[in-house]
Amino acid sequence: MRFTSEQRFDDGVLEREFTLGEIPGILWTPGSASAPAPLILLGHPGGLQKMYPRLMARARHCCAGEGFASAAIELPWSGDRPRSAAAENARADLHRALEAGEPVHDEIVDRLVLPLVETAAPEWRAALDDLLTLPEIGGPIGYAGGVIAIGIRLAVVEPRISAALLFAGSFVPRALFEEARQVTIPLQVLLQWDDEGNDRQMALDLFDAFGSKEKTLHANMGGHIGVPQFEGDAGNRFFARHLK
Amino acid sequence: MRFTSEQRFDDGVLEREFTLGEIPGILWTPGSASAPAPLILLGHPGGLQKMYPRLMARARHCCAGEGFASAAIELPWSGDRPRSAAAENARADLHRALEAGEPVHDEIVDRLVLPLVETAAPEWRAALDDLLTLPEIGGPIGYAGGVIAIGIRLAVVEPRISAALLFAGSFVPRALFEEARQVTIPLQVLLQWDDEGNDRQMALDLFDAFGSKEKTLHANMGGHIGVPQFEGDAGNRFFARHLK
Repeated sequence: MRFTSEQRFDDGVLEREFTLGEIPGILWTPGSASAPAPLILLGHPGGLQKMYPRLMARARHCCAGEGFASAAIELPWSGDRPRSAAAENARADLHRALEAGEPVHDEIVDRLVLPLVETAAPEWRAALDDLLTLPEIGGPIGYAGGVIAIGIRLAVVEPRISAALLFAGSFVPRALFEEARQVTIPLQVLLQWDDEGNDRQMALDLFDAFGSKEKTLHANMGGHIGVPQFEGDAGNRFFARHLK
Repeated sequence: MRFTSEQRFDDGVLEREFTLGEIPGILWTPGSASAPAPLILLGHPGGLQKMYPRLMARARHCCAGEGFASAAIELPWSGDRPRSAAAENARADLHRALEAGEPVHDEIVDRLVLPLVETAAPEWRAALDDLLTLPEIGGPIGYAGGVIAIGIRLAVVEPRISAALLFAGSFVPRALFEEARQVTIPLQVLLQWDDEGNDRQMALDLFDAFGSKEKTLHANMGGHIGVPQFEGDAGNRFFARHLK
């Protein structure tokens, strides 16, 4: 991991861009920390630059509110990383189906999401290896955000992740649905009740499927990007309960 | 309204029992209040004495956490109040159906819940009239708890109620389901995912039916009485957003 730039915000939060091999990432750490900070991995749909304003706001809210560090890495085939023809094709097929108002077949979801999960999960884990060598980071790890299928995989395979706040706003392959039953860490699942590109019943079934004894669903009105601001505070408190 | 007893707790909260005609009730007010406190009406399934430990804990949590006053009154045909043969019959029919594992017909729900709503809602409103004459109480009003059908009715007919935290844990007559569409105040709806005596799909449909633009569903694992403690804090924050 190599740091390539840094800036410090008014609230003391230090933002550092880094590369991990060819993968760009961003790390935010609290201004004042007496002990190594718990770390939240910030999931997102891909495109770090496009997502930057939202990720930065969320990271600083985590830092300022609870003293957590946060990090995000670019997803495979997104942002400045090399494209995948297969992924582009699957995405085009998805959009065609959605625009035509047709059901999205499992086959399209599998082609779109499974390779992403297979590639991204090991990258997040490698980033975690490196991030945990920094003296300012330590203690339990959380995962927050989408892509929910990546969050499911990480919750199952990465024992360093102690709690996850998952955004049920994207398609989940049947295979990951089955993996959800193996998740045992505490979960908070966010659902936008009128999410245009998300099947509400599928999200409720997924919530039901998770194996975790402590899982909470927060469903709010509105579309995909309409998550109310107060859920940022609710997320902080969820992680404060489980990462401190 | 006539106060019949009072005690002050270590945390400064003043608890006063009162009667409103033949209806017993309890009022909790914060120890130190510089201004009139917003009031939370604490809904419950009936039986003030049986419910006292939970109501008292919730009221003191509201007082200590947010400086809210809280009040509860006995439900019709519960606790020390005169019984209703019709209500007893309906309750017996409900239990027979549940024990036999049979579906609970609308007719039973109507007989059990509609008269309760028709009688209890005006009583709550009369209590509100009297409570609001006290100088230590003022500002916006919230309703918290079950019986959810009573909460729906009050949210529709009582304009002084500004926000409601409803516990989806009891049967809702079809007619009240329709009334739910007329509710426009902010709602937080609690659902216990594995509630023995509650139909999960009905609760989700009810959440969908509410007309409120701001409504949040908090679903947690466990049975009817297993609402996690952190939902007490979440409820306080919901009311803090809307009653302050």
